[in-house]
Amino acid sequence: MPMKIALAQLNYHIGNFTDNTTKIAFEIKRAQQNGVDLIVFSELSVCGYPPLDLLEHRDFVNESLETVKSIARICTDIGVIVGSPTYNPNQQGKPLFNSAYFLYDSEIQHVVHKTLLPTYDIFDEYRYFEPNNDFEVIEFKGKRIALTICEDLWYNQPAPTPFGRTMLYTVSPMEELSRQKPDFVINIAASPFSYTRVNIKSKIFTENARKYALPVFYVNQVGAQTELIFDGGSKVVDHTGEVVDEMSTFAEDIRYYDLDTVQNRTYSKRDYKNHDIIERIHDALILGIRDYFSKMGFTKAVLGLSGGIDSAVTLALAVQALGSENVRVLLLPSMYSTEHSLSDAEEIAENLGVQYDIIPIKSIFESFKDELDSLFEGLPEGITEENIQARIRGILLMAVSNKFGNILLNTSNKSEAAVGYGTLYGDMNGGLSVLGDVYKTDVYKLAEYINREKEIIPNNTISKPPSAELRPDQKDSDSLPDYEVLDKILFQYIEKQHTIGEITDSGIDEKLVREIITKVNRNEYKRYQTPPILRISSKAFGPGRRMPLVGKY
Amino acid sequence: MPMKIALAQLNYHIGNFTDNTTKIAFEIKRAQQNGVDLIVFSELSVCGYPPLDLLEHRDFVNESLETVKSIARICTDIGVIVGSPTYNPNQQGKPLFNSAYFLYDSEIQHVVHKTLLPTYDIFDEYRYFEPNNDFEVIEFKGKRIALTICEDLWYNQPAPTPFGRTMLYTVSPMEELSRQKPDFVINIAASPFSYTRVNIKSKIFTENARKYALPVFYVNQVGAQTELIFDGGSKVVDHTGEVVDEMSTFAEDIRYYDLDTVQNRTYSKRDYKNHDIIERIHDALILGIRDYFSKMGFTKAVLGLSGGIDSAVTLALAVQALGSENVRVLLLPSMYSTEHSLSDAEEIAENLGVQYDIIPIKSIFESFKDELDSLFEGLPEGITEENIQARIRGILLMAVSNKFGNILLNTSNKSEAAVGYGTLYGDMNGGLSVLGDVYKTDVYKLAEYINREKEIIPNNTISKPPSAELRPDQKDSDSLPDYEVLDKILFQYIEKQHTIGEITDSGIDEKLVREIITKVNRNEYKRYQTPPILRISSKAFGPGRRMPLVGKY
Repeated sequence: MPMKIALAQLNYHIGNFTDNTTKIAFEIKRAQQNGVDLIVFSELSVCGYPPLDLLEHRDFVNESLETVKSIARICTDIGVIVGSPTYNPNQQGKPLFNSAYFLYDSEIQHVVHKTLLPTYDIFDEYRYFEPNNDFEVIEFKGKRIALTICEDLWYNQPAPTPFGRTMLYTVSPMEELSRQKPDFVINIAASPFSYTRVNIKSKIFTENARKYALPVFYVNQVGAQTELIFDGGSKVVDHTGEVVDEMSTFAEDIRYYDLDTVQNRTYSKRDYKNHDIIERIHDALILGIRDYFSKMGFTKAVLGLSGGIDSAVTLALAVQALGSENVRVLLLPSMYSTEHSLSDAEEIAENLGVQYDIIPIKSIFESFKDELDSLFEGLPEGITEENIQARIRGILLMAVSNKFGNILLNTSNKSEAAVGYGTLYGDMNGGLSVLGDVYKTDVYKLAEYINREKEIIPNNTISKPPSAELRPDQKDSDSLPDYEVLDKILFQYIEKQHTIGEITDSGIDEKLVREIITKVNRNEYKRYQTPPILRISSKAFGPGRRMPLVGKY
Repeated sequence: MPMKIALAQLNYHIGNFTDNTTKIAFEIKRAQQNGVDLIVFSELSVCGYPPLDLLEHRDFVNESLETVKSIARICTDIGVIVGSPTYNPNQQGKPLFNSAYFLYDSEIQHVVHKTLLPTYDIFDEYRYFEPNNDFEVIEFKGKRIALTICEDLWYNQPAPTPFGRTMLYTVSPMEELSRQKPDFVINIAASPFSYTRVNIKSKIFTENARKYALPVFYVNQVGAQTELIFDGGSKVVDHTGEVVDEMSTFAEDIRYYDLDTVQNRTYSKRDYKNHDIIERIHDALILGIRDYFSKMGFTKAVLGLSGGIDSAVTLALAVQALGSENVRVLLLPSMYSTEHSLSDAEEIAENLGVQYDIIPIKSIFESFKDELDSLFEGLPEGITEENIQARIRGILLMAVSNKFGNILLNTSNKSEAAVGYGTLYGDMNGGLSVLGDVYKTDVYKLAEYINREKEIIPNNTISKPPSAELRPDQKDSDSLPDYEVLDKILFQYIEKQHTIGEITDSGIDEKLVREIITKVNRNEYKRYQTPPILRISSKAFGPGRRMPLVGKY
């Protein structure tokens, strides 16, 4: 009898043991009925990834371990691999391991711990886990399985920092396991999406399969956990390094494979459409919004629609994620808002069929000025008054949020967030930032993609010069370079961590480069207080980028 | 000739190589003139600790290394130990080491790398650094020095998590070095203050000295870096484990020691006043405010004075830190503010000699209600309207901040922040949170300490029941238990990470415990957007506590 293997790519909810177990148990049962020998769930599937400092609470770890035991009880005639933290029984080292549990015959048969613990960017695994240094293949139904956890297969990746081609790790778990002559490799993972890493990730599996001449079964988590978006895309690679099957991206998926036919490569080779990057970002953001709402227990959103491109794109994504009946918008014109801003905003609201209300902010602004009149006597108007307008809008949006339970979506983009072009407690408000990891030039591409079949976002919104409209005839270009140039500098500095010398080598004026980098560094304090930002790049503002506020650099 | 050793406990500024080097060079020169053989600066002294992700920028690491070389040039007839990151020359592992540089004879003589890399709470060292596993004592003028970096001496500490008495590390650098028969131990550190760790820290040095029968010279960094407050308190311990000298806390200090007399214990034993915890917290917060302002390049502060205890204590601390001429306050009464609130606020402003202005928020509130009238028609007033008031105050304070350049100080305490008793974009605004790591019951103790010589904070402010005054006759106790009980639950859950079972074992009602813990967990999203909080405990809200927002637990 050939071995039948199921890969279960599911969307877990951190700490929601009931929901996670229900999903897992359902798929175990279904696989049993289909004669599956072994079903594989992703990394830390029982508790959801990343659990962060919940791992410092024994109640949490205990519940995860109890859940593993209760899952084991239903694994009568099927092998099951799930992930959970484990207590480190040694008197030395970190208190936990990041483990894969192999369940069979109603019992825990094997526990394999993770060796390579990513501790960079958004990853903090060494904060909690002791690395494993004990390697053993698992025997199951006459086959020898090399069971690995996520980065355990990533030994060969170049270090994700710009310090030459240094390799990040000093141990290779797969090298150790290969000495024990396994028949195939399983990799359970929780590997988040970033548009720059799609190809790197794919190479990891094909290269390992080829190097060790073993089929690789890779199961990734799918779904968003606050800012992190896990894209799924689980894969089966045969022993020659050929991708035999790739599962859905940004959606749950369960597929059954026959080990023998994978090894003999009798699967018909498929042509995978190489999704465009913008399409992937689009889909990632929709999943990010949807999961944030569903996992927080929210259904409805609100946002401020200015007539500009950022809020238009945010609205279109929100409607895709939550449905037009669950999204409402406020149009909040000031005395500096142009006629077309209001009409553009109305047009997109109507195109998408969302409820919109118009509240002019002029009279509230006047009442602020009246009260501040004596304090500010003799002083010219300026940034302060621009900020007051942005903050009045923030209050009005939060008032609707508080009164009706709609969560405020933030509409700032990454270019603005980088240089501090936004008002704290004003347009930087929100429960979730949708575009905070998308550069302005990519926001335009998203708008075009959204309009690929019909004009949802008015062409006028796309073609007019961007403006905050906080003073007469204001344009973004008054205080910023062209977004094409700005984004080039920002990408090299933030994502690539290039030196000033390297950035100017690409042909950009040194004075401008220094000016922009100074703006980025000076505005750390604003970004410290922004909402969580859906992460789609390899370096997003938020927990994956930790800069000192008081640093002088 | 007996060896003369200088310990230099200085306040560095992250990334400010010019200022840091000037300080270091000045002390080297002075020590030379005083016949010192060896002067010791603290961990990563050249670049300041913690540099965080600046370590991912080569420009930054290069500048630090160049600075070390330029310091070496002035070390003609004196040994100097400074700290800097170093590139890891190996092809595998993390790209950097956390290093101590031993300079002498105008050259770099030795480089020692750190072995035990704290990666818990606010520490992320394994994010950047490869651990050392190469141990060698340094020979200098006929003496053998065991040079260690911070946690390299902390091998024996119990793991700082509530998972039994597991030890955190698997290697003991001091055990390795002791085989090479050193004459004394140097420990360069950047160890932040927390009021619960004062005694633990002291024990580390006395126990190591006793165990290895060696004198220990410990140099800590002093000064605040955003939320982290380094307390200094550098120490010399003789080979019997007796503390021979303890340097200043919360202030720079440089002292010279004679190695022989330390070994023979001819220093007169001193009685150190065991500072009261509240006094230490008081001094820590003042240093925290002062350094945040000076390192950010700010001089002036503003805050909202409500007549309550939190803003009163914040104001008193700010005046101590910045001078009364640099602090101004706004009194922002609503229609629900009581007469005594205004008079209490005026009294403390006058006691402390700060400029104050009164801006009633009623008419602005009315203009918001007018504009929202049609949207909210038929709906009862409630939280929404309370939040609007808090947010109007936030706008007014930020307007003064923007117009005059005064940085807004946040006045929320830890008890409120824990249960989400505060308004985002309202009273949660600010550039820095002064009391966000101080429980309400300790805020009262701080007030008493501030009043120890005369009544600065009106007794009425201390004795009246706390209230947010956002609706008629509101009291904190309407929605929260007594702060004595609340703080007990919070401390056990947040600082001690106790299980619900353990907390109820201490005699508190289980329903109440569950209710409070649920509030703490549900309000992660609010704390995500709070300003940096000065850290004085072993577990502050902020980068040392990383909880999933979408978690269900």
